[in-house]
Amino acid sequence: MQDLAKLQKVLPKTIEIKKDYVNLIDQLKLPSQLKIVKATKWQDLVVAIKSMQIRGAQAIGGAGAAAMFLAVKNCQDKDLEIFQKNIFTIAQKIIAARPTAVNLSWAVNKCLEAAQGESIKAVRDGVCQAAHYIFISEVENNIKIGEIALDLFKDKKNIQTHCNAGSLSGIWYGTATAPIYSSFLAGNNFKVWVDETRPMLQGSRLTAWEMQRAGIDFSIVVDNACGFLHSQKMVDCVIVGADRIAANGDVANKIGTYPLALMAHENKIPFYVAAVNSTIDFNAKTGKDIKIEIRADEEITTETKYFNKISSPKSADSFNPVFDITPARLITKVITQTGIFAPNELLLNKSNFI
Amino acid sequence: MQDLAKLQKVLPKTIEIKKDYVNLIDQLKLPSQLKIVKATKWQDLVVAIKSMQIRGAQAIGGAGAAAMFLAVKNCQDKDLEIFQKNIFTIAQKIIAARPTAVNLSWAVNKCLEAAQGESIKAVRDGVCQAAHYIFISEVENNIKIGEIALDLFKDKKNIQTHCNAGSLSGIWYGTATAPIYSSFLAGNNFKVWVDETRPMLQGSRLTAWEMQRAGIDFSIVVDNACGFLHSQKMVDCVIVGADRIAANGDVANKIGTYPLALMAHENKIPFYVAAVNSTIDFNAKTGKDIKIEIRADEEITTETKYFNKISSPKSADSFNPVFDITPARLITKVITQTGIFAPNELLLNKSNFI
Repeated sequence: MQDLAKLQKVLPKTIEIKKDYVNLIDQLKLPSQLKIVKATKWQDLVVAIKSMQIRGAQAIGGAGAAAMFLAVKNCQDKDLEIFQKNIFTIAQKIIAARPTAVNLSWAVNKCLEAAQGESIKAVRDGVCQAAHYIFISEVENNIKIGEIALDLFKDKKNIQTHCNAGSLSGIWYGTATAPIYSSFLAGNNFKVWVDETRPMLQGSRLTAWEMQRAGIDFSIVVDNACGFLHSQKMVDCVIVGADRIAANGDVANKIGTYPLALMAHENKIPFYVAAVNSTIDFNAKTGKDIKIEIRADEEITTETKYFNKISSPKSADSFNPVFDITPARLITKVITQTGIFAPNELLLNKSNFI
Repeated sequence: MQDLAKLQKVLPKTIEIKKDYVNLIDQLKLPSQLKIVKATKWQDLVVAIKSMQIRGAQAIGGAGAAAMFLAVKNCQDKDLEIFQKNIFTIAQKIIAARPTAVNLSWAVNKCLEAAQGESIKAVRDGVCQAAHYIFISEVENNIKIGEIALDLFKDKKNIQTHCNAGSLSGIWYGTATAPIYSSFLAGNNFKVWVDETRPMLQGSRLTAWEMQRAGIDFSIVVDNACGFLHSQKMVDCVIVGADRIAANGDVANKIGTYPLALMAHENKIPFYVAAVNSTIDFNAKTGKDIKIEIRADEEITTETKYFNKISSPKSADSFNPVFDITPARLITKVITQTGIFAPNELLLNKSNFI
């Protein structure tokens, strides 16, 4: 995989387990500065999660696994039972760093399940292996998505994406960006339209940074521009990630995904969703079963400066839903590490995803 | 018109001709500060237009007429012919302040046509009357739009608008805001969803300011939120202004109007366009005949600060089309001072608009 190595030179891993410490990109410093932060204690990673130095479902899961790795590395207890008890307590504290992050508790619990054995060494090795396995398999899944999608993307000259379901949202390579990177590494020429993605601007801050690092041609547009771009035939396909996919193929993703999908559908532009299998939640029958998070007003109002001025009147009310539901009928294909499916084929293939 | 007086107390005219000077709201100071700037020379208004202290098609037209008013007030020439020649020269300089603004040349030329008569006094009076007439009739047109739309809006509890086709874009009262103000003055209770309108944020900076001044309940949302709001039945109708309306009813308006209209159509929410008759351009057969302005990158990238940081990587490319075309079939009604029309009825009623 010579090509992947080439990409890795310019696009570092978002989070990486080293011999006895963990490196992560401080995403609060992006896009101005690439700063790698070294975490030596599990508490460092709790701080990183809480402060949003690290964000994105898969990356937060990785941070949880890495925190468990540091916890067993550093724990000095000599008694097996006390050691295990302490690790269990620490695990709960790590999960509490962001209680709503499903991937975080999933990854920490995976490590905790491996905290078994006849000796402290066995418990330590078990957790370390589990943590490493999560890091390796998550990246493999992303790379697999890229490989599977390559045929679909080889003729796409103008690819639009929304938010950041990129390398920075995962451990490396990303989900929505996986077909972009694989097409790039295959030598195809194309341009990426990067939606800036209000209110948090993950597109212009993070996806644009990734494209620039990788050397992929890109242009930032306001989210409002989709109507212009699509009607002018300036986009060949759209690809986004997913926060959750319901059994019927409805997709919960960053606010603005539904209008983008509707516009693509209106203009006969393929609309793809890329996600790892674990994103499919067969317990949610349709998008109606997925609760939408409403976040703080200041993400829209007080923290936005424009030409160095505030962007809204003092004490103006605002309303900040951060996800929306894209109906399955607007989605051309869902791309996972298992294969490419029409949204209504997911349930039929349920056994392949678990 | 007791009610209008009540509104005028809290929402000053955007631009106003006084005895021998002109007052205007400095829109560069909004939403932080309401600052009324006094213009005593025609050159002051050229500066105000160029610096964007005043913006919006109708308001710029008003500034042009007001500049002509100041020009004839201040011109000291004693010879009729020289007086008229100087006024003609000044008129060209005013028009050159923003050569692409159709309303500016229209208003200045209206005043120039009135610069006729046997004496300097007659010329001066002619221009002053023409300028005053523009100010009065433009506001009357807007108020008429509000009156005509009142029946349509009396049961609308949640009204969404995009950009600022409000009082600040005109001389007073606005076009898209006219039904909002008339419904408010009629005592109806409702809420306005204000799209922030990237990149220039005219919604959160200007429309939100107007709503707050008037005392109308409002909430700012990112442009991305339309899918969430519409699918959750949180919007009863959408109303926007127009930069230009083609003969077939296609509407050129601020970028993001087309996706908003498409979403409203998808969710069976009425979508209204409010505009004065002169916005209808029967020379443009369809939206394809309307050229879309592409503006500077920095409106998207370098001038946007988020949590006090830059919002995109250094030297990132961006693309900034500032209008889009909403197809006529997505528009429920066009509301003008002449009446309410389906978009495909405009051409049939051409003689009523001229």
